[in-house]
Amino acid sequence: MRRRIRLTLAYDGTAYHGWQVQPGLPTIQGTLEEVMASIEGAPVTVLASGRTDAGVHAQGQVAAFTIANPIPGPNLKKAINRLLPTDIRVLAVEEVAGSFHPRFDAVAKTYEYRLVRAEVCSPFERLYVYHFPYRLDEESMNAAAPLVEGTHDFRSFAAWDEHGKESYVRTIFSSRAESAPGRWTYRVRGSGFLKHMVRNLVGGLLEVGKGNWTADDLRARLDPARGIPPGPTAPARGLSLVSVEYPPTSRG
Amino acid sequence: MRRRIRLTLAYDGTAYHGWQVQPGLPTIQGTLEEVMASIEGAPVTVLASGRTDAGVHAQGQVAAFTIANPIPGPNLKKAINRLLPTDIRVLAVEEVAGSFHPRFDAVAKTYEYRLVRAEVCSPFERLYVYHFPYRLDEESMNAAAPLVEGTHDFRSFAAWDEHGKESYVRTIFSSRAESAPGRWTYRVRGSGFLKHMVRNLVGGLLEVGKGNWTADDLRARLDPARGIPPGPTAPARGLSLVSVEYPPTSRG
Repeated sequence: MRRRIRLTLAYDGTAYHGWQVQPGLPTIQGTLEEVMASIEGAPVTVLASGRTDAGVHAQGQVAAFTIANPIPGPNLKKAINRLLPTDIRVLAVEEVAGSFHPRFDAVAKTYEYRLVRAEVCSPFERLYVYHFPYRLDEESMNAAAPLVEGTHDFRSFAAWDEHGKESYVRTIFSSRAESAPGRWTYRVRGSGFLKHMVRNLVGGLLEVGKGNWTADDLRARLDPARGIPPGPTAPARGLSLVSVEYPPTSRG
Repeated sequence: MRRRIRLTLAYDGTAYHGWQVQPGLPTIQGTLEEVMASIEGAPVTVLASGRTDAGVHAQGQVAAFTIANPIPGPNLKKAINRLLPTDIRVLAVEEVAGSFHPRFDAVAKTYEYRLVRAEVCSPFERLYVYHFPYRLDEESMNAAAPLVEGTHDFRSFAAWDEHGKESYVRTIFSSRAESAPGRWTYRVRGSGFLKHMVRNLVGGLLEVGKGNWTADDLRARLDPARGIPPGPTAPARGLSLVSVEYPPTSRG
C-alpha cells in the first residue's frame, strides 16, 4: 500500500539555495529527498506548497510525498528529524488522500517579513530579520500596506524571470504592517504569490517609507496597463513562510 | 590623551573558539582586537570580564581597551559595529577610568542556561539552546538548584585543567531553575565562576533530573574534603553570559 504523507516543516533557510533541487547545491527539497530515499530505500519526490527563495525561512511550509514504507506517522516524524540537519525540522506528519497536492490544493499562504529598526541588531536574530536602522516613515508604510488587498494583476511585483506567465492575477486577503518599538512587521495572506512577490511588496513599502514612492506610486503598480517594471526586492533573510492553508477535505 | 573604553557586547558564540585569542582560530577577542587595531592604527589589547568557552554566547559581556583615537563614544560604537561581523555586536561604549579592569573590577556575573524540552526544537533557536526532549524530573532539579547558593569551594564543579588553582572558593548569590511549557531555564548569579563551572552545575542538575544523583550527591560536591571529581559538562550552546556587574565607581 503506497501512502501519501503530508509534512509541516520549519526551516532556517540561511544555508540553503532555496527549496528547489539544484545539482551540487544544498536545497531544502534536495535534503528532504535524500533523507526520504534513505528511509524508503528508493527515490522519493518531495513536493512543497511553493518554492521558497534562497535564504527565505519557513515556520510552516507544507510538503508531501508518497512512500510504501509502513512506519507509523509519529515514528516517521522521529526518523526524518533524526536524519535531517537541525536547521530543517518536521513539525507534523499526517497521512492524507493519495491525490493531495501541496501546491495545487493550497487555498491560502501567509508570509511574514520582519525589519529590525533598532540601531543595533541582536546577533541572535541577525539571520532572521532585515536590519534597517535608517529613517522610515512607518506611518505611511502601515497606511499603504492594505492598498494591495483584493484581486489584482501583480506583474509589477513579480521577478523579472516570471515574465511570460499565463496569469499574474492573485488575491490578497490581508496585507498589514505594524510598528513596535525597534521593529516593523509585515504580514500578508493571499491565494498565492508570484516569485519575489512578497519581497517586492516589502521593497515597495520601503520605497514609500523612504519617501521615494507615494501611496499612488504603489497603487499604480496594480494596473498592468501601466507596464511598470518591478521595484526593489527586500532581502530574503527577513522573510518567512508562516503557514499554508488547505480545504478540510484535502487533509486526508 | 589615552582613553580607557568599556564595551558591552553581545555575541553568537557558534562560529568562535571562545573568547581568548588562539593563533589561526576565530575567537571573539581576536576579532575585536583586529577591528580595534584597524581603527587605532596600532595593536590594541582587548580584555574581557572573563573568557567564554567555545560556543558559549553573550548577551552582556564586558570588555575594555585603551586607545589614543579621540573618536567620540557613539561614533566609536558605530565604527566598531561597521567593522565587526554581525554575530558580534557592541551594545554600549563608555569612557571609564584608566584603571578600569573588566575582570578584576567585576563584582557579579549572571549566566543563563536554556534547555528546550519539546520533542522538536525550532530551527531558529537550535544554536542557542540545548535540546533535551528526554525524561527529566524538573521538580527535583528546580528544588536542587538553590542548594549551591552561598560561599563554597567549587573545585568539584571546575574543569579538570583548572586543578592546581590557588582558590576554588566562589560565592553564588542566586541559583534558580524554572520550568515553563517546553523549556527549562537555569539562571545563576555569582561573584565569579571557575572554568566550566556553570556548565558543570547544569550537568549536575541534569544528573539530578535523570535520577542519577540525589540532591545530597550534588551537595556532597561542595565539600572539597570529599574530593569528588567533576561530573558531566552541559553543552556550550545552551549557555549565555547575561550580564556583568561593577561597583558604581569603576564606571569612569
